[in-house]
Amino acid sequence: MISLATADIPIKAWLNLSKCLLTKRIGRGDFVKEFEENMADYFGAKYAIATCNGTMADTVMLMTLHEMYPDKDQVILPAFTFVAHSNSVVNAGLKPIFVDIGENYQIDWKQVIPTDKTLCVFPANLLGKSCQIPSWPEIPILEDCCESMGGSTFCRMFGTEGIAGSFSMFPSHTITTGEGGLIITNNSEFNEIARSVMNHGKFRTNDFTFSYFGTNAKMTNLQAAVGCSLVEKIDEVNKKRRRNVELYNHLLGLNFYAEAPHCYPILYPSKNSRDSALKLLGYNGIEARKLMGCIPEYEFYQKRFGDMGYFPHASLVANTGLFVPVHQNLSQKDIKKICVVLNATRQ
Amino acid sequence: MISLATADIPIKAWLNLSKCLLTKRIGRGDFVKEFEENMADYFGAKYAIATCNGTMADTVMLMTLHEMYPDKDQVILPAFTFVAHSNSVVNAGLKPIFVDIGENYQIDWKQVIPTDKTLCVFPANLLGKSCQIPSWPEIPILEDCCESMGGSTFCRMFGTEGIAGSFSMFPSHTITTGEGGLIITNNSEFNEIARSVMNHGKFRTNDFTFSYFGTNAKMTNLQAAVGCSLVEKIDEVNKKRRRNVELYNHLLGLNFYAEAPHCYPILYPSKNSRDSALKLLGYNGIEARKLMGCIPEYEFYQKRFGDMGYFPHASLVANTGLFVPVHQNLSQKDIKKICVVLNATRQ
Repeated sequence: MISLATADIPIKAWLNLSKCLLTKRIGRGDFVKEFEENMADYFGAKYAIATCNGTMADTVMLMTLHEMYPDKDQVILPAFTFVAHSNSVVNAGLKPIFVDIGENYQIDWKQVIPTDKTLCVFPANLLGKSCQIPSWPEIPILEDCCESMGGSTFCRMFGTEGIAGSFSMFPSHTITTGEGGLIITNNSEFNEIARSVMNHGKFRTNDFTFSYFGTNAKMTNLQAAVGCSLVEKIDEVNKKRRRNVELYNHLLGLNFYAEAPHCYPILYPSKNSRDSALKLLGYNGIEARKLMGCIPEYEFYQKRFGDMGYFPHASLVANTGLFVPVHQNLSQKDIKKICVVLNATRQ
Repeated sequence: MISLATADIPIKAWLNLSKCLLTKRIGRGDFVKEFEENMADYFGAKYAIATCNGTMADTVMLMTLHEMYPDKDQVILPAFTFVAHSNSVVNAGLKPIFVDIGENYQIDWKQVIPTDKTLCVFPANLLGKSCQIPSWPEIPILEDCCESMGGSTFCRMFGTEGIAGSFSMFPSHTITTGEGGLIITNNSEFNEIARSVMNHGKFRTNDFTFSYFGTNAKMTNLQAAVGCSLVEKIDEVNKKRRRNVELYNHLLGLNFYAEAPHCYPILYPSKNSRDSALKLLGYNGIEARKLMGCIPEYEFYQKRFGDMGYFPHASLVANTGLFVPVHQNLSQKDIKKICVVLNATRQ
């Protein structure tokens, strides 16, 4: 089986975990602090907040911003995205306003105008690719970088453009702590509130006083112990993944580019041909997935929110796209095998 | 420092964690499955679902029930409780209907009448004590047992009374996985939907199809590796904790009882005397906390939900109560020291 996800576990992870057990600090603990400090350093951000997973990082970011601007409850995000991205909006008690994508998986900002209910725009650097960000100075930006840790362009490092950015350390992502998430921000008020929101809305004292609607999104010291062994690997992993993308491009005659590749996406002429390709990949022991969905097409979204607009490009990409692995532990032989199968499906 | 929380880490936890690293299964993995099976066995329940923490276990239970009964959105719960309990209602997009408590920290069911919008009653076995459960056959029960794992009375095991029950493995609780939660149920539909909801609303296949509003509440294999080493300790821990409660009762001349003690609560004549006692305990290196709150008194609840009723007993207990440690690794000497300080505050 050639799988979509991989896990790099340096010996340091084992030493760190042993230390958690010896010191009996498996919940909160020094590795969480160390991981947050190392990640803040890596991003050049003032604050980094470790969370239990990327979905909860998104949810906590939105809950935090809603505490800062309680009168605003609409969030603008792409119609084509991973469902956790839009679910986090719903789970924070907010209303998603979807926008269609245009070329190159990019949100088409011309199609939307913010209102006085707009809490923020919430673009995602999906597939590990840099997303375009609108320049509406009065509207806060939350940047979902769950699929793109360590990506950067000439102008910006992913996650540092808006008031805060979120990351995921799920096994298919750049580094993994099993499950894991991270929020970075340079805004001290945002940092304070987010730390409270992720810990039941507590004041930072121990007196069981609560100031905000909260949840529990804390990372364990166990996860952070693994994370601390991996911070230095981020750039190396992305470099290997970009090299894998180049090999795919070469073997398939395509031209995909991502700064921090999460997967290799391929579009087919029809849903049927995409679904056949998925089957053939499966038969050949290659893990592959449908691309992310067109969220407003999901029945349960339509039931709750009614008709949310017309999203032809998001729908086309969602219904005809798939992705194959791009992770750093693929061999050239793996990629060649995948491309032989893919080329057979694309004739 | 005599702390409120403790962690028992058998050598088996270290062996299990080493196995996670060797097999590179730190996210989903066999220990999660083993932990779920062992816990289902322990509770005599058909299904057990491991989650990242107890708050998310509560949230997933409510989201699941709401998927089953989408037209109902009100949840009846005690006004005196830990804030995570009521926050989970809000985070699931539902409306909390608070009820005052009466004698012995018990919800006073006479004060509320369910309506056709009532999704469920959601009592908590708070402080490790058995809660009374109303007999409204048409209203589903979700039972919060976050503070009472392994507790049972003559008639019932906590968590098995309603459609589902939730547990927490936070360090102050009976067993700990750092952070961790569990849902048990005998209802196969509930089990299927809950497993989907906690994993982004996915179908159980791998094809990225989504059927429900979801979140990410998955437990890591790292947490489960620790959990698997602790299942057999639950009854032993509760026995030790009950013995600690007896010693407190003897030394303080009080009469508290809990089946699965989470802490030892003490009520003072006034807020001032309680706050002074907390200070004195702190000076003496004894970790103690205000008792849980009267949730509808919290300013952020009032801002969002307006006036939610009159809760004099919940308010009194919340404003005059504190709790001290009762965990299984306290020595008799610790408890005697705590009681000397407590007796000084109660003169």
